[in-house]
Amino acid sequence: MRYTRVSVGGRAVWGQVGEEDVELLSESPLDATRRQPHIERGPTVIGTVPRAGATWLPVVVPPVFYAVGMNYPRHIEHARAEVPTRPEVGYRANNALTGHGSPIVKPAGVEGRFEAEPELVAVIGRTLRHATYQEAQEGVFGWTIGNDVSARTWQHQDRTFWRSKNSDTFKPMGPWIETDVDALAQTTTLRVNGEVRASFATGDMVFDPFDFIVEMTRHVTLRPGDVLWMGAESTCQLEPGDTVDIEISGIGVLSNPVHSEGNPS
Amino acid sequence: MRYTRVSVGGRAVWGQVGEEDVELLSESPLDATRRQPHIERGPTVIGTVPRAGATWLPVVVPPVFYAVGMNYPRHIEHARAEVPTRPEVGYRANNALTGHGSPIVKPAGVEGRFEAEPELVAVIGRTLRHATYQEAQEGVFGWTIGNDVSARTWQHQDRTFWRSKNSDTFKPMGPWIETDVDALAQTTTLRVNGEVRASFATGDMVFDPFDFIVEMTRHVTLRPGDVLWMGAESTCQLEPGDTVDIEISGIGVLSNPVHSEGNPS
Repeated sequence: MRYTRVSVGGRAVWGQVGEEDVELLSESPLDATRRQPHIERGPTVIGTVPRAGATWLPVVVPPVFYAVGMNYPRHIEHARAEVPTRPEVGYRANNALTGHGSPIVKPAGVEGRFEAEPELVAVIGRTLRHATYQEAQEGVFGWTIGNDVSARTWQHQDRTFWRSKNSDTFKPMGPWIETDVDALAQTTTLRVNGEVRASFATGDMVFDPFDFIVEMTRHVTLRPGDVLWMGAESTCQLEPGDTVDIEISGIGVLSNPVHSEGNPS
Repeated sequence: MRYTRVSVGGRAVWGQVGEEDVELLSESPLDATRRQPHIERGPTVIGTVPRAGATWLPVVVPPVFYAVGMNYPRHIEHARAEVPTRPEVGYRANNALTGHGSPIVKPAGVEGRFEAEPELVAVIGRTLRHATYQEAQEGVFGWTIGNDVSARTWQHQDRTFWRSKNSDTFKPMGPWIETDVDALAQTTTLRVNGEVRASFATGDMVFDPFDFIVEMTRHVTLRPGDVLWMGAESTCQLEPGDTVDIEISGIGVLSNPVHSEGNPS
């Protein structure tokens, strides 16, 4: 199944994505999951919008927005960083989220490298604490795609990632949550204006999502809707006027145009 | 006015705090603020619970949980850190939030310094982007108290603050949001088991909350319910069995017992 959120009359509505249409749902499928298995009742269909022309929202607004840094060996080598010896996680911020199709806005003050980072995203579907590896596997509701847009000069100048990675529109996430995919056996492809810039196996990670969930839930409670962005192997430069696509086979394509602040391209 | 959230029959309900009772509200006063000034209608009272025996929840679950690090000159001196030349902000995580009166749980794996950090917290009440200093002042809905509990060994060992500052229960916030106080002209007092461990002027900051909001909103949109924790001047050690109180004059007292994991003291 493919779930997403779309804007209908200015309101965020959950939807189930078909070939032609998005069926609008009465409630979040994540909330329905929370009630299972006691009540095997899900959301009901309350309407339909055509996929073409739908306004896609970030697939979920997470209670906590987790992001993994260095997790692909080739990225670590490229950054001359040390290979992590245990799963450690950081954070991103909900203000930066934007949906499939919406612009990434390059701020006027950004100089130098302004890059896309294509990432697999796990969406949590259960409350998890002290999870086993199997509970971690069962606790993932589905998978989506994230673009961890980064302004490198700010990243190096600042004490935190607040503006380098969390300026408004720097975190496209979508187009939907795919619940039926072997997410670690897929290929991530990064394209700019249709040209392939990077391609790598999703599963070529130092620690996989379930390793992270096991370690994280030793200390924190994960809840339905929390997201875990899994890091990127490769990055590429973005310029205003570009369109950046991230495809993960078995999931879909997250596509966003790049604009300049105050100057849509 | 003093607003908070309490647990009623397992449900989170907003309340307005009086001398003896908490009046339960039909909706968030933050959401009501969002509708103003076009519709001057606030939440309505739907019930009452006595203050004694109320189960206090974190005063808000923020869309984004911002936290300032080094912001009091004496703390910076003590940490041998450099005085920041511009306002930079980091993040904390909602899983760690807990309410007034609820236990701070010291994880079994924590060794060494396990400390309280008493902080003034600004609760945002309006959508703010490119805010002026005056708009920043008008955009703060009210003020509450936070305890930025920190496990120092983990803080030094880890690449991020994920478990040192964001383990479950490490972020008590409450007891309420005070809307009528000159928050920068108050005194913060940290007490353990009734004994004063630290006392400092809230306003003795390098950058005040409005400086932060002006700088932050150059790049990010702040929204109603976002919180900004303003940093601490002093810290003190906590042991299981202790009760830690943080009082900010003009706001109130945030009090939490300290337990051991798996072993309530």
